[in-house]
Amino acid sequence: MTSRSNNFAIAVHGGAGVILRQFMTEEREQAYREGVASSMKAGCEVLKSGGTALDAVQAAVMVMEDDSVFNAGKGAVYTHDGDHEMDACVMDGATQDFGAVAAVRLVANPIKLARLVLDESPHVFLAGTGAERFAEKHGMKLVEDSSYFDTKHRWRQLQQALKREKQNAGKPHTQLDHSDDREKMGTVGAVALDINGNLAAATSTGGMTNKRFGRIGDTPIVGAGTYADDKCAISATGVGEMIMRAMLSFDIAALMEYKNMSLAEAAELVVMTKFKEFGGSGGVVAIDAEGNVAMPFNTDGMYRGYTLADGTSEIAIFGD
Amino acid sequence: MTSRSNNFAIAVHGGAGVILRQFMTEEREQAYREGVASSMKAGCEVLKSGGTALDAVQAAVMVMEDDSVFNAGKGAVYTHDGDHEMDACVMDGATQDFGAVAAVRLVANPIKLARLVLDESPHVFLAGTGAERFAEKHGMKLVEDSSYFDTKHRWRQLQQALKREKQNAGKPHTQLDHSDDREKMGTVGAVALDINGNLAAATSTGGMTNKRFGRIGDTPIVGAGTYADDKCAISATGVGEMIMRAMLSFDIAALMEYKNMSLAEAAELVVMTKFKEFGGSGGVVAIDAEGNVAMPFNTDGMYRGYTLADGTSEIAIFGD
Repeated sequence: MTSRSNNFAIAVHGGAGVILRQFMTEEREQAYREGVASSMKAGCEVLKSGGTALDAVQAAVMVMEDDSVFNAGKGAVYTHDGDHEMDACVMDGATQDFGAVAAVRLVANPIKLARLVLDESPHVFLAGTGAERFAEKHGMKLVEDSSYFDTKHRWRQLQQALKREKQNAGKPHTQLDHSDDREKMGTVGAVALDINGNLAAATSTGGMTNKRFGRIGDTPIVGAGTYADDKCAISATGVGEMIMRAMLSFDIAALMEYKNMSLAEAAELVVMTKFKEFGGSGGVVAIDAEGNVAMPFNTDGMYRGYTLADGTSEIAIFGD
Repeated sequence: MTSRSNNFAIAVHGGAGVILRQFMTEEREQAYREGVASSMKAGCEVLKSGGTALDAVQAAVMVMEDDSVFNAGKGAVYTHDGDHEMDACVMDGATQDFGAVAAVRLVANPIKLARLVLDESPHVFLAGTGAERFAEKHGMKLVEDSSYFDTKHRWRQLQQALKREKQNAGKPHTQLDHSDDREKMGTVGAVALDINGNLAAATSTGGMTNKRFGRIGDTPIVGAGTYADDKCAISATGVGEMIMRAMLSFDIAALMEYKNMSLAEAAELVVMTKFKEFGGSGGVVAIDAEGNVAMPFNTDGMYRGYTLADGTSEIAIFGD
């Protein structure tokens, strides 16, 4: 679509998982709400001034990457080795072009690097030190060392995870209780519609606390954690291993395309029924070409918010 | 499905691309045909003796990884730096479990490591040296250095690619002619149905000659290069960047599920119409739960073959 309108919209999330009211302090809740609000504000400024959905989702995600309460960029969780390895993806619904990076260590804003990959690389998915060399070649400054990402609360989470792992030592992974996986993760993401009718999606994450062996999750995988075309844009959060197996984002797009479902129907069916029955936990923020927003999640909570062109705006955390 | 039958089937590919009769020597053609035949034989032996589709596709792919004519394992192409970085994925249609590895350097049979990830890791997608540490932890021997993968014909291909790159120096990537990308790639893959009615898919590749920056292609991406559920199993080959954007494998599955198309109809529509219009070149081998096989490709040729339980077998290379 190329017809200009005054219609635009943005929706963002800061992760889904075990987010219970009884464990939430007023301070923390406030920090999350402010983070979501600032992110939407950055995205909305781009959209209001006639910018692209692609620029808007990048701006929105960068704000959350810079905010240490979220598991992305500055607040990225620790790997098993006490390091940080981040994944990100941005996709332009107008062209279905995307850029993705995985397991990058020294990039303050992985979504910015994903965008650089989209704009400047014939390859679309780059990993590890190779992705960092690409960043430097294109003039992006890396952080000097990974201490940029050090935060006390993430360090505590790693120590807890290591302790639990020790208690479970010797058990095959299939017999482990993975219910605590939901506490170890978090992701940030944004989807937007711009005044030219184009859609875009962006997702960024530090992955899973205590992850090992160069684990890649769903975030940088198009069709799993991130997807955008000319009908919808989706950013997912939750247990990445399950999101990849279920092709969560693309399944929503497929139901809209092949079953003529609305965005709300498709997102609801995929997240609340299919994904749940599959044993998956997580949620999405999704938007369609008319600016309709859906934000279903099957976890206790999801940090989320949306803003429409008419000023309607909502920020929420819990499911009730 | 758990009802045993005498029905089984396997289909394999050794890559699609610019494969023209006039450039094919009798010797090379013979080598490819023998490679495809040996691969199918290995898979069929597993299936005939009542083994799983999962074991069959792994066995079939390992034969092609060990055969230096194919771009996977032993015959993997060179990266820009004169190294080898391989990707692989195996998916069990019965459970939708998968294991994937990307950018591994010292693994003779990447598909074997992908299977180890499926069987032994709580994470499903591992990359780089992390994936190699996982291999060693689980007793898999790595090759001593990357000279195991050195072959003269791949080295020549790298020199040609570097020469072309030099000629194109300075041009932005969007203005480059990517038509020669099709010559720089290749993948091997297998899909199978076992006598218990279960499906599986496996894909392995050395990626693209002269690739850089830790480039990951479609091969290890579930829903793009590899996919299996209880209705179909698919392994794709072609320009990976486009296969990922189109979610080639999952789109075939989605059309079967949501549009009630047959495997042949869905595979034909996705590969020969949608993917072609999208600007993508490549092909797939696909199989459904009744043992029907489809092998459409929109390139000049695709090394391919299938064998059914009744002994029907075919090997082909060109499109005519």
